[in-house]
Amino acid sequence: MRLLDLNRSLGTTIVYAGTDLDHIQIAQVTGITQAGPGSLTFLASSQYQSLAAQSQAAALITRDVVPEFKGPQLLHKDPHFAYAKAAQLFHRIDHGTPGVSPQAFVEASARLGRDVTVHPGAYIGARAVLGDRVVVYPGVYIGADVTIGDDTVLYPHVVIYYACVIGRRCILHAGSVIGADGFGYAVSSGEICKIPQMGIVRLGDDVEVGALSSIDRATNGETLIKNSCKFDNHVQIGHNVEVGENCMFSAQSGVAGSTKVGQWVLMGGQSGIADHLTVTDRVRIAAKTAVVTPLTEGGTYVGFPAVPQKEWGRNLVYVKRLKDYEKRLRDLETRLASIQAKEEGLT
Amino acid sequence: MRLLDLNRSLGTTIVYAGTDLDHIQIAQVTGITQAGPGSLTFLASSQYQSLAAQSQAAALITRDVVPEFKGPQLLHKDPHFAYAKAAQLFHRIDHGTPGVSPQAFVEASARLGRDVTVHPGAYIGARAVLGDRVVVYPGVYIGADVTIGDDTVLYPHVVIYYACVIGRRCILHAGSVIGADGFGYAVSSGEICKIPQMGIVRLGDDVEVGALSSIDRATNGETLIKNSCKFDNHVQIGHNVEVGENCMFSAQSGVAGSTKVGQWVLMGGQSGIADHLTVTDRVRIAAKTAVVTPLTEGGTYVGFPAVPQKEWGRNLVYVKRLKDYEKRLRDLETRLASIQAKEEGLT
Amino acid sequence: MRLLDLNRSLGTTIVYAGTDLDHIQIAQVTGITQAGPGSLTFLASSQYQSLAAQSQAAALITRDVVPEFKGPQLLHKDPHFAYAKAAQLFHRIDHGTPGVSPQAFVEASARLGRDVTVHPGAYIGARAVLGDRVVVYPGVYIGADVTIGDDTVLYPHVVIYYACVIGRRCILHAGSVIGADGFGYAVSSGEICKIPQMGIVRLGDDVEVGALSSIDRATNGETLIKNSCKFDNHVQIGHNVEVGENCMFSAQSGVAGSTKVGQWVLMGGQSGIADHLTVTDRVRIAAKTAVVTPLTEGGTYVGFPAVPQKEWGRNLVYVKRLKDYEKRLRDLETRLASIQAKEEGLT
Repeated sequence: MRLLDLNRSLGTTIVYAGTDLDHIQIAQVTGITQAGPGSLTFLASSQYQSLAAQSQAAALITRDVVPEFKGPQLLHKDPHFAYAKAAQLFHRIDHGTPGVSPQAFVEASARLGRDVTVHPGAYIGARAVLGDRVVVYPGVYIGADVTIGDDTVLYPHVVIYYACVIGRRCILHAGSVIGADGFGYAVSSGEICKIPQMGIVRLGDDVEVGALSSIDRATNGETLIKNSCKFDNHVQIGHNVEVGENCMFSAQSGVAGSTKVGQWVLMGGQSGIADHLTVTDRVRIAAKTAVVTPLTEGGTYVGFPAVPQKEWGRNLVYVKRLKDYEKRLRDLETRLASIQAKEEGLT
Repeated sequence: MRLLDLNRSLGTTIVYAGTDLDHIQIAQVTGITQAGPGSLTFLASSQYQSLAAQSQAAALITRDVVPEFKGPQLLHKDPHFAYAKAAQLFHRIDHGTPGVSPQAFVEASARLGRDVTVHPGAYIGARAVLGDRVVVYPGVYIGADVTIGDDTVLYPHVVIYYACVIGRRCILHAGSVIGADGFGYAVSSGEICKIPQMGIVRLGDDVEVGALSSIDRATNGETLIKNSCKFDNHVQIGHNVEVGENCMFSAQSGVAGSTKVGQWVLMGGQSGIADHLTVTDRVRIAAKTAVVTPLTEGGTYVGFPAVPQKEWGRNLVYVKRLKDYEKRLRDLETRLASIQAKEEGLT
Repeated sequence: MRLLDLNRSLGTTIVYAGTDLDHIQIAQVTGITQAGPGSLTFLASSQYQSLAAQSQAAALITRDVVPEFKGPQLLHKDPHFAYAKAAQLFHRIDHGTPGVSPQAFVEASARLGRDVTVHPGAYIGARAVLGDRVVVYPGVYIGADVTIGDDTVLYPHVVIYYACVIGRRCILHAGSVIGADGFGYAVSSGEICKIPQMGIVRLGDDVEVGALSSIDRATNGETLIKNSCKFDNHVQIGHNVEVGENCMFSAQSGVAGSTKVGQWVLMGGQSGIADHLTVTDRVRIAAKTAVVTPLTEGGTYVGFPAVPQKEWGRNLVYVKRLKDYEKRLRDLETRLASIQAKEEGLT
């Protein structure tokens, strides 16, 4: 790919003293230590300038000009972001040739858009509607009345229960399950009665769901995941949860039923939010943390139960000092006893 | 459905001043705020009486008579439970038409009951026995010598390893795995030897297993899940575990090998019980909690390690006061030093 | 099986006073309490000698000779290990007859070794290479350019994304996912850009992966799991992680991206290691523990955040004493106040 075309796609600004800019070609995108001739690379932080200086790379994405690097420099305020965009252009996954495999099972009433790819062993239920260029890997199950937006990719064994709605450009990784029953029961006189889960799951556009993650259908209405949410593997979203735009949830995290999460919320690995809570925008929940009360202010929360990060750190320090406290208490008691003994002698 | 028939099914008592009871029909079951004409709804608690008063609902399930509601009232001591029963009557999931798909793979020696539904891409192994009306979704794997009771539903990609036994009216959600090997190894001189897992898993009747949950086969004998247990998604049950009747385990919880759990035990999300323990009946384990000692008394347990809820709350309060303790210690030390200084002046 | 042959396989030493050693046959391998005539059993610890004395077993694996047991005794320094080896000889799982099912989907360019078993509904992608005697259960997905070593078993619905490499004699349990995208994004000006995950996963020989576990492909290079690692169910391994030989990770544990784990590391259930850390050899991480700093010394770590087990236990004790500290503080304050009051009287 011509560097000039790449520059245009990335929206970067070129700084270069040479005269051969028209002819520079990029063959690959790599990290700075692996970059050889033909590579485009990036400088994550100015503290690594010396790496850039030694690099054989054909071109460098950087925030500030690196005088020692003699090749073309593509300026961007966030080099890692521009690098990711460039890498996307070079790394196209081969999802197979569009068309429906004769070994797939597609109900007659399903409606498929243009250039859809349906691999062997996939199942598409009655009245399901698939947008253009949707990719359905082997073993995917799409229930009746499901809707899937354009350009969405469903990796092997994704299961989408009936009537759920998936947006455009979503990526669902292998084994993820959308729309299984929420966990709801009523108990009376020693009998457990299942509460029918009559709602659906709705995923916005550009949502990515990791391998083996699950999002449960609502009891009534919708479990709602808004645009551009990114979930890692083994994530669990309970029934009637609502997650705002651009949230990123790490592996093995979970949100319990009916909780509303704002936008740009980050969840660390193995963290959880209890049911029926509200978590405001831009909250960051540390790994392993358990949120059990509503969070109305942004910031980072840590611990079980979750408290602001500063408070958590302080408590850890105090707990570490407990051994010392015990010693000081004993010391005080001894000294006081000796004073009192003396006083009794005095009086 | 005629209200009178519904009343009989639910075992409720009708209170109604009108004369048209014979003719009242119910078209749907909804929450109280969405209830329109033709709806049956319920009053969860008397504090919401005003909602009932304003409701357009055709009929109301309630614990106590609501004078302001003019339609028929169905009295039940647990309205939410009666509502769940009613909702089940109105929400019948379409599992497809009974019969075996020609695109399913059924070994010749498997025995299928009456009105079994086997969808395309399902696999049923040698000598497997399926009861009447069992539903097998696409991609389900049923190993050799497996037994499945009447009316059980296996959602897409459920995997049941060889020789396991599933009860009647069970629901296994997508991707759940029954009977994979328990995690057992013997180590000697730097070599790890796998201990063959020669037992099975046995599920009682009316067990529900969430999406992507797993129950491991026993090393010898059985991993046993008794009647009416309900497991959420991503639940892990280790080998040789025994779980009593009517337990409810929330998402991402786990029970380690050989532990015996009593009946009516509740586990919160992301909680765990260590191996080789006994947990008595009616224990409630809070979310995120780690049980590492036997629990011989009912009640609620919280924390890592789990302690009775009251103790956990108290400890939290004390830890919060640590900053204050430090100040008080310092204050005491200063005052004592000044007294001692004076005393030394005195003597 | 003849006892003498078994003895040779196990590398044990026979002690026996009888003269019929040549004729003794073993029909099964069982625990000591279930052992009947024809059974080989083992004595885990000398404290159970009385069980051995009463046993009807045909032969006994033991560390030290048990005078009361009259049958042949097979001496081994680790009887449980020798027992596991013996059990493996008696418990052969039937994986079906070698051959490729006509209902499997195998791309023409895939290369299969000798005596490979491919069950119905499995999918093998372009240019995949399978070693000899590999077993592929129904619904397994093997992506393009994947390599699988000899004697590896892939249980139902295992998914291996393109280009990953699996070693010899591996066991991958149902629903495990190898090579899904790592969780990597770059954010700039309110836009989230997916970082292409261009690397692979490489599993060494003799690796076992539990049901519904996932190991993500590297951003660049390899996510590497070395020989003889054993992972339980629901385990999550992030992109670019490296795990040394002989590690054993229990259910629902996770290792975040780019972390390097040494050899013989044990992780308890629901434990986690944060990203970009190094954990040295022979570290034991307790259940539920969260490692958030590098661990440079072997030993057992517990808690959130993880500290050496001794420190954790001590902190628990101190926290339990907080109620007492509060009392002692109040007591000291009262006594000091009374001393000061007197002093003021004195002066």
